[in-house]
Amino acid sequence: MTAHTTKEGLRTLIQAARKTRPCDTVLSGGRIVNVFTGQLESGDLGIAAGRIVGIGSYEGIETIDVSGAYLCPGFIESHIHIESSCLVPSQFARGVLSRGTTTVIADPHEIANVMGLPGIVAMHNDVLITPLEVYFVLPSCVPATGFETSGATLSADDLSDLIGEEWVIGLGEVMDFPGVIAGADDVLDKIVMARQNGKLIDGHAPLVSGGNLTAYLSTGIGSDHECTSPAEAREKLSQGMFVMIREGTDARNLSALIGMINEKNFWFATLVGDDIHPRDIIERGHIDYFLKRATSEGIDPITAVRMATIVPAMRAGFSHLGALSPGRQADVAVLGSLSAFDVKMVFKKGKLVARDLRASFENSGLSDMPRVPMRVSGFGPESLSVPFRNGAARVIGIIPGQILTDELPLELKGENGVAVPDMERDILKIAVIERHRGTGNTAVGFVKGFGLKAGAVGSSVGHDSHNITVVGTNDGDIAAAVRRIVDLGGGQVVVRDGAVISELALPIAGLMSELVLEDVDARTDKNLKAVASLGCVLENPFMTLSFLPLAVIPKLRITDRGLVDVDSFDFVPLYV
Amino acid sequence: MTAHTTKEGLRTLIQAARKTRPCDTVLSGGRIVNVFTGQLESGDLGIAAGRIVGIGSYEGIETIDVSGAYLCPGFIESHIHIESSCLVPSQFARGVLSRGTTTVIADPHEIANVMGLPGIVAMHNDVLITPLEVYFVLPSCVPATGFETSGATLSADDLSDLIGEEWVIGLGEVMDFPGVIAGADDVLDKIVMARQNGKLIDGHAPLVSGGNLTAYLSTGIGSDHECTSPAEAREKLSQGMFVMIREGTDARNLSALIGMINEKNFWFATLVGDDIHPRDIIERGHIDYFLKRATSEGIDPITAVRMATIVPAMRAGFSHLGALSPGRQADVAVLGSLSAFDVKMVFKKGKLVARDLRASFENSGLSDMPRVPMRVSGFGPESLSVPFRNGAARVIGIIPGQILTDELPLELKGENGVAVPDMERDILKIAVIERHRGTGNTAVGFVKGFGLKAGAVGSSVGHDSHNITVVGTNDGDIAAAVRRIVDLGGGQVVVRDGAVISELALPIAGLMSELVLEDVDARTDKNLKAVASLGCVLENPFMTLSFLPLAVIPKLRITDRGLVDVDSFDFVPLYV
Repeated sequence: MTAHTTKEGLRTLIQAARKTRPCDTVLSGGRIVNVFTGQLESGDLGIAAGRIVGIGSYEGIETIDVSGAYLCPGFIESHIHIESSCLVPSQFARGVLSRGTTTVIADPHEIANVMGLPGIVAMHNDVLITPLEVYFVLPSCVPATGFETSGATLSADDLSDLIGEEWVIGLGEVMDFPGVIAGADDVLDKIVMARQNGKLIDGHAPLVSGGNLTAYLSTGIGSDHECTSPAEAREKLSQGMFVMIREGTDARNLSALIGMINEKNFWFATLVGDDIHPRDIIERGHIDYFLKRATSEGIDPITAVRMATIVPAMRAGFSHLGALSPGRQADVAVLGSLSAFDVKMVFKKGKLVARDLRASFENSGLSDMPRVPMRVSGFGPESLSVPFRNGAARVIGIIPGQILTDELPLELKGENGVAVPDMERDILKIAVIERHRGTGNTAVGFVKGFGLKAGAVGSSVGHDSHNITVVGTNDGDIAAAVRRIVDLGGGQVVVRDGAVISELALPIAGLMSELVLEDVDARTDKNLKAVASLGCVLENPFMTLSFLPLAVIPKLRITDRGLVDVDSFDFVPLYV
Repeated sequence: MTAHTTKEGLRTLIQAARKTRPCDTVLSGGRIVNVFTGQLESGDLGIAAGRIVGIGSYEGIETIDVSGAYLCPGFIESHIHIESSCLVPSQFARGVLSRGTTTVIADPHEIANVMGLPGIVAMHNDVLITPLEVYFVLPSCVPATGFETSGATLSADDLSDLIGEEWVIGLGEVMDFPGVIAGADDVLDKIVMARQNGKLIDGHAPLVSGGNLTAYLSTGIGSDHECTSPAEAREKLSQGMFVMIREGTDARNLSALIGMINEKNFWFATLVGDDIHPRDIIERGHIDYFLKRATSEGIDPITAVRMATIVPAMRAGFSHLGALSPGRQADVAVLGSLSAFDVKMVFKKGKLVARDLRASFENSGLSDMPRVPMRVSGFGPESLSVPFRNGAARVIGIIPGQILTDELPLELKGENGVAVPDMERDILKIAVIERHRGTGNTAVGFVKGFGLKAGAVGSSVGHDSHNITVVGTNDGDIAAAVRRIVDLGGGQVVVRDGAVISELALPIAGLMSELVLEDVDARTDKNLKAVASLGCVLENPFMTLSFLPLAVIPKLRITDRGLVDVDSFDFVPLYV
């Protein structure tokens, strides 16, 4: 991956370097993080034709005083699902660019599960109208498992239509680690196809270790972002996996993992978001926040910057990114300090694209993003009825701050022969309703950990097939939530006493909003407050909800087709 | 660059990792250099289907006890001209594989100057019959200058025929740094062409610094192997150049440069040979020798190994090389210690290819290597006649141990109106005879420093166009040397009293021998002794001779077209 150029572009740079013409822009007076030497340098940063001319003393058509500030290469996000922000890519771009992220590797796994290749292409097209540089990896697991009904299926043959595109740099996280370890045809076909095209292969192998990990890695899968303990991360890194330390909205592994990073091994690790809500982007930040956290936990600031710039650039083969050196792209994050990581200005290809955490562009680019109807058939409150039986039922146990779940063997509460939510013990009903093909599938189970005392909360975002997922305290409110989500063409809704008290419409594939970043944030905030008013104890119940159907992460999950025990990789009945 | 694979290959590895089938080979009891963690590990190294299964406890069809030894990834040579060894690639392979080098990036600049693209393709084809993995960069400067007659000219358009090949990973050292800095069309065309194809660009910029270096780098040129001082290397590395520390037969920079390497910057530096004679490969070694030298100068042994394995692999995008980790190619150097770097065994793709410094294969692979006739026309002893004039002549002054030459203003010796060699003052005749196109060009000059008292010494290796270059004490012996070189179709010859007393035929493009490594070494040894018997005082007169036509290195040179003053970059007459 080398950025294309023209002879004229090169001549402009050569002339600016030799000072026979002025730079377009000079950032003067800053301290520059040199990712090659690991040192700070002083000098002007000269920029011309969107690229770095050099560090020294330059005349510019425009000179911007950055005295006292620190100049870093723009940050690189190595693994994120943009859809999880509920923002279209062009709005997501506004958020992360304002935080110093200038390049993103996105896995459009969510939209692909809803609508296949056209969804991936739509994501790509939407980012093109923004300054953010986004590369894509092709979702490897659509559907993620055979345990649920998705809107699309992507075979190796299907993916080969896009693998040769320049904006496609690899195969996305291979979540089907049981398939890889078993040598299953379909997943190996995708791996072979990616390798034949010289592309990266991202992994996803939570808690996989020993011979199974070795088997998984032997296929050429090169990264993992699912580590939750230092021992797991150490084993993976030592076996050649590029360890992506995740600090998402829901899955936060930075504190647990950062201690395993040292000066010898950080070249094989970076910091990623995976799934981030807009509220977090606005309030905490993105990679700037990860860097602040990493350094507060003892990582050397320049090491941290390297982990967010040259390290992911080298891993992805981006020779035009990741450093402020002659000829590289002028992607620059201007920081107030290397402890607060407070982003003052952001330049992309030499243009100022954000200042004081506000992006300097407003485009929404929504016109081409695809809507799909919610195809739900035969659903009604009666679909939610579960017969009561004595003895333990398999209840999904939420683990705060993790996406892993427990399987809790708990007695349900019975009324008139049916199992009902038991708010006193925080055992609520969860339902997943198929929405792609009108199959009429509805699965019902129970979950502990939400803490709702009334109402229901539902969403058309439910990894990975994104069927409608609702948790509630009574069937009426659950059914009302489902109806509203269908009417909106997708969304996140909060219902109490049969009435919608807050909502965020997600008409773009049932995953993303039509609204701008700030409005999505405001609606989300209102939604979260509404859920909290129902008694919810979770920090982000929509994120938690969205992961409950994800039948590739231990332990107990629920899809439109039923309860799944991920360890045994099979359906299990509700009652033990 | 990801190694291709098949589903069946992957399944073999998966099964071996899960121990449902034995490994093909197990190296048991060694200590393994983990290039990711920078630590040593203990365990068996399992190998199947030519790839690493893992580190642990494995059963193998074959088990090799390597107790007490150190296992490193096979070494990677990032910049070498194979032709300079006088060996065909398949013989060069025998030499370096026995020293633990399992992958080479070669710049076939010499053969390209003789015969253009077919020469490059022939080099590629010849290595295919050996276990050595060789990638090529395309020579960027054919011919190097307009001062001499070469066998070929390669434009950007010509090079584009091969740039897309998988075995071609970049554009070779861009020696025309004045052209780059001036923004010359021809060289920028080649750079743009390489970038458009996503390939690497190697540099060559001795002593270039400041704004000129910045200008050079801004075009995307990414490496340099010409540093001679720590300050030069520091400046280049800090600007993003990948610094290749050279330790060739003649140009030895390791001692001068290794001190600038530290734990923060070694990820952007490696150790290379550039030009190495077979004697050095046999007696000193290759990268094993560089590593021994580097560690003896204070580099941590594991850091040194990383600089020769994962660092060059990452730089070149070889995700299948550079580490002993699951799924990577089983290229292994087995060392007795990490201080002596004594290579005990070498495995390539899991096969034992060398033991105790002896390659286990003998193929010569000569049948397809191209011979070209010496197209010399109209040459005879009379071509060597130079009229005598009173006053100073421009005599080339050899500087022992350097490639630089002096221009010495000296009175020549006259006899019967012609200028003749004067052995008492060590002023000998030098002639360069064009051999590619039958132009009849012969240039004659005088040189001081060889010390011959009788006879002549000649070679068809003369950088960079490789015309026939002879130094002698009388016209008869010079002419005899030329005739013999022509008859051999190229070679290095030593003549006394009209008779050839020693020779090494180089019929492959006039650059390389048909003989095996050991025989080339023996003949070279005999040649050197023969030249010494004529009174020569130089350590390697063939090497000195080969650089005298190189009209890019100051001060006075001679090509088939005449004497060149490199400082004024123009032809000059013999007499001042």
